[in-house]
Amino acid sequence: MAVTGFGVHTSLWSHNWTREAAQKSLAEAARFGLDFIEIPLLDPDAVDVAHTRALVEGSGVGAICSLGLPEHAWPSRDPEAGIAFLRHVLDITEAMGCTALTGVTYGGIGERTGAAPTERELDNVARALGATAAYAREKGLDFGIEAVNRYENHILNRGIDLTRMIEKVGAPNIFAQLDTYHMNIEEKGLGNGIIDCREHLKYIHLSESDRGVPGAGTIGWNEVFAALAAIGFTGGLAMESFINLPPQIGAALSVWRPVADSAEQVLEEGLPFLRNKSRQYGLIA
Amino acid sequence: MAVTGFGVHTSLWSHNWTREAAQKSLAEAARFGLDFIEIPLLDPDAVDVAHTRALVEGSGVGAICSLGLPEHAWPSRDPEAGIAFLRHVLDITEAMGCTALTGVTYGGIGERTGAAPTERELDNVARALGATAAYAREKGLDFGIEAVNRYENHILNRGIDLTRMIEKVGAPNIFAQLDTYHMNIEEKGLGNGIIDCREHLKYIHLSESDRGVPGAGTIGWNEVFAALAAIGFTGGLAMESFINLPPQIGAALSVWRPVADSAEQVLEEGLPFLRNKSRQYGLIA
Amino acid sequence: MAVTGFGVHTSLWSHNWTREAAQKSLAEAARFGLDFIEIPLLDPDAVDVAHTRALVEGSGVGAICSLGLPEHAWPSRDPEAGIAFLRHVLDITEAMGCTALTGVTYGGIGERTGAAPTERELDNVARALGATAAYAREKGLDFGIEAVNRYENHILNRGIDLTRMIEKVGAPNIFAQLDTYHMNIEEKGLGNGIIDCREHLKYIHLSESDRGVPGAGTIGWNEVFAALAAIGFTGGLAMESFINLPPQIGAALSVWRPVADSAEQVLEEGLPFLRNKSRQYGLIA
Amino acid sequence: MAVTGFGVHTSLWSHNWTREAAQKSLAEAARFGLDFIEIPLLDPDAVDVAHTRALVEGSGVGAICSLGLPEHAWPSRDPEAGIAFLRHVLDITEAMGCTALTGVTYGGIGERTGAAPTERELDNVARALGATAAYAREKGLDFGIEAVNRYENHILNRGIDLTRMIEKVGAPNIFAQLDTYHMNIEEKGLGNGIIDCREHLKYIHLSESDRGVPGAGTIGWNEVFAALAAIGFTGGLAMESFINLPPQIGAALSVWRPVADSAEQVLEEGLPFLRNKSRQYGLIA
Repeated sequence: MAVTGFGVHTSLWSHNWTREAAQKSLAEAARFGLDFIEIPLLDPDAVDVAHTRALVEGSGVGAICSLGLPEHAWPSRDPEAGIAFLRHVLDITEAMGCTALTGVTYGGIGERTGAAPTERELDNVARALGATAAYAREKGLDFGIEAVNRYENHILNRGIDLTRMIEKVGAPNIFAQLDTYHMNIEEKGLGNGIIDCREHLKYIHLSESDRGVPGAGTIGWNEVFAALAAIGFTGGLAMESFINLPPQIGAALSVWRPVADSAEQVLEEGLPFLRNKSRQYGLIA
Repeated sequence: MAVTGFGVHTSLWSHNWTREAAQKSLAEAARFGLDFIEIPLLDPDAVDVAHTRALVEGSGVGAICSLGLPEHAWPSRDPEAGIAFLRHVLDITEAMGCTALTGVTYGGIGERTGAAPTERELDNVARALGATAAYAREKGLDFGIEAVNRYENHILNRGIDLTRMIEKVGAPNIFAQLDTYHMNIEEKGLGNGIIDCREHLKYIHLSESDRGVPGAGTIGWNEVFAALAAIGFTGGLAMESFINLPPQIGAALSVWRPVADSAEQVLEEGLPFLRNKSRQYGLIA
Repeated sequence: MAVTGFGVHTSLWSHNWTREAAQKSLAEAARFGLDFIEIPLLDPDAVDVAHTRALVEGSGVGAICSLGLPEHAWPSRDPEAGIAFLRHVLDITEAMGCTALTGVTYGGIGERTGAAPTERELDNVARALGATAAYAREKGLDFGIEAVNRYENHILNRGIDLTRMIEKVGAPNIFAQLDTYHMNIEEKGLGNGIIDCREHLKYIHLSESDRGVPGAGTIGWNEVFAALAAIGFTGGLAMESFINLPPQIGAALSVWRPVADSAEQVLEEGLPFLRNKSRQYGLIA
Repeated sequence: MAVTGFGVHTSLWSHNWTREAAQKSLAEAARFGLDFIEIPLLDPDAVDVAHTRALVEGSGVGAICSLGLPEHAWPSRDPEAGIAFLRHVLDITEAMGCTALTGVTYGGIGERTGAAPTERELDNVARALGATAAYAREKGLDFGIEAVNRYENHILNRGIDLTRMIEKVGAPNIFAQLDTYHMNIEEKGLGNGIIDCREHLKYIHLSESDRGVPGAGTIGWNEVFAALAAIGFTGGLAMESFINLPPQIGAALSVWRPVADSAEQVLEEGLPFLRNKSRQYGLIA
């Protein structure tokens, strides 16, 4: 799989993947002994690809990329536009030295029709994901799809939705990504989503119920870690917290009030909390 | 306060408050020994007011009304329009034999600017709520405001937001309403929201994390009931579940897939679950 | 395995397995649609074996036996005495039409030295369990060992202790039994015990933190069911509640105050709670 | 009340209150910024009273004492012997510069008849506690009683038992002490015990379900802290963990296996966990 162990979504340090952000993120990853980082590709063409690649290769830290698609490339409406966009992003992903692309790769944050996805929408998405997974495979990349809550997207909201889509696509390198923040809104029980994905699950965002400091919210973390351990999860555990977002990203994600005091609070309180729990359930050493 | 004991949001039986819906709801309330019902006023002028009043008065069951405001009456933009609309609804509420109006009475479901509420928006809302509470008081009605999650409204999301607004308004008959579904997304801990409202809290929606069957989700019910008991809560406990919504309401509330098998499942599994927990913590006899 | 599906420990109806108790228990099992019952053998020689066999065979309900050993037969001190006693009980188990013997089959309730078990004690126990499992296998019976809390026995307290003992014994028909009441005192997380047993786990007591009404206590049921589902558990789920115990049994089990109002309360509140949760996590249909 | 804020039971550092233990404990209290320590008086006459007093007075750290009674002084059997013993311990408590005595001050760890307490036992206990509280009051000391689980004592197991006894005794300086480890076995819900004590509750042991590292067990901490905050608790929050006990104490407390790796693990993982939760719910600044 793409990454293993414990990592952090780099939006904790910066929302734009500038050279400064890359340096800061990899330095922090080393300081906190992380196994990997996740780099959000909000503006793929603005990245200094070679700069990141050199940093990542020199670091010993794994790296994967993530994104949501811009409206013109939503596969539910226009699979070919989605494929073209994703191919381009996979080229950048590979060039940056990253090993996987994941996130809302099947659509957009804010893509909602107000109804359940239609068969035609799901067919379009499956077609785009199949072609993209094949392209990723040629490059040795894994390709993930992340379930997000009903307010952010109407296509794939739960673990069971991911599994159905993955089985529909049928590619060996496509994987399921969950996020505890979204699961808390969508799944019956937190374990249900994990069990529904089972062997397809290769990556999970560990995010609190308010996207703030992990451990200081309503997520039933014991159930999350117990279910992960019980299915034999060996993928990447990624802490994610959205703090101090720039206005336009905050608006897109509906995070317009501070959900934590600072990145330091998340790193000093949330990170040990999640690592201790991961150890308690035998997910990391 | 407006109501006490254990009740149900009548959307479980019907989404439009027709005569048939009124008869069905009050018959079911009697069958399940409820203390009160909540009547959503999606279309206030379509209600047969005298019919409901006769049914409610003959039933021994308490009744309150709830709603969210239509866009033309959002007080954050136009307090006078909000006041005019709310006065009209309070007239209907009184005429129906109901004792309170609550819900998103300060704005609309879907009202979002993508930013935190501005001082001007909050001032406008406070002005409208103050005038409305005064009008309600003349009629002997209580008047509630319900915190809802960030995806549905940006004005009042948490218990602390309700308390600040109530203290800003300063009317004796304005009260806070919480909803466990929204709290699960917005509050740090479920108890935090309850403690932040404390004596202002007179009404709470007991709704599961997916708005399905209470008890079959991720809500930490023990914390909810322990905190309610510990603050000495004596208001109304209202089970709420959104199942089989008509398409347009489902779209507004982002509930486009079935979150329970049927109303029967909610009544046969969820209702006993919530009542048993309420008894365990001494909130009902 | 011995039993599957959902059952009940018959101490809910009677503490002595008289003919009346047998009739009552199987009638109640039918009334509540149980898949199996557990019969405690507090006084094996007092059972009307043929009577139970006829009832069980005519019922379509599975049955297993359970017990703790009397002090003269504690294997940690005298393995041969333990083997002799257990062989006799296995004869009775088979004759009653039961398919397994489980419980504190490796020692006594109240067996405590005030220290961790010694190598010699563990060797003695393993020897007795190995011989007993072999004897059970000749009869086509499964043979279980149940972890109980530190106050009741010092030999096997956690899931990991069961697994180590089972691997030490090495018999194909020996299995692990857990009990959520004991797990709540002994395991780090409830899921940890289940994961530590994994494929050895064939039977679990679903018992509340105070041994009262399941659902009205502190057990983290979601984690229990999520972990069971995630390891692919297909064994027996047995509700256990100790109410209205006769004084001497109450003294042995330290249950001297009523932990529920009545057996009816356990059946009407606890049983639906556990079945609904079992269904939510796909453990029963 | 006796103490406020956040403290630690000093058994984490040493089980005998020697001069070395006193120095170590107060140094650690300063290092970790604790508001108070709890000193177990396992052997009251062996304490260098003046040495402790000087250390405590120089430290700015609050201190209280705790103990369980030796069998000859169990008040349920011999109230006068209990009173005499407790008076002596109160003299020592005062001389050490401590402000309260608490713990199983009404009996012994291991005092069990196998039945519920009789009226006579409760009368005897109340008589002893009343006389002792009066003596403590003369000295300006508060006097607490701690509920412990059914396996350790049969007199006072739950919050409701404490409240009944306190109301029976009727002294102004007697207070209730709870312990989350014991509550997890005895109370219906963790909040129930706290609510049952309400204004009588002045001190609580924050101890994990296995007495190991707080946060790495089954205690529902959110409910504990929410209920404490909601009742307006302002007493002492004391972390307690029993690790590496000497054999005889381990035998008495049934802690014969390591429940944590080390005191460091408890201080580095458990202490921040509890403090963060205390802050989240507004119990400490």
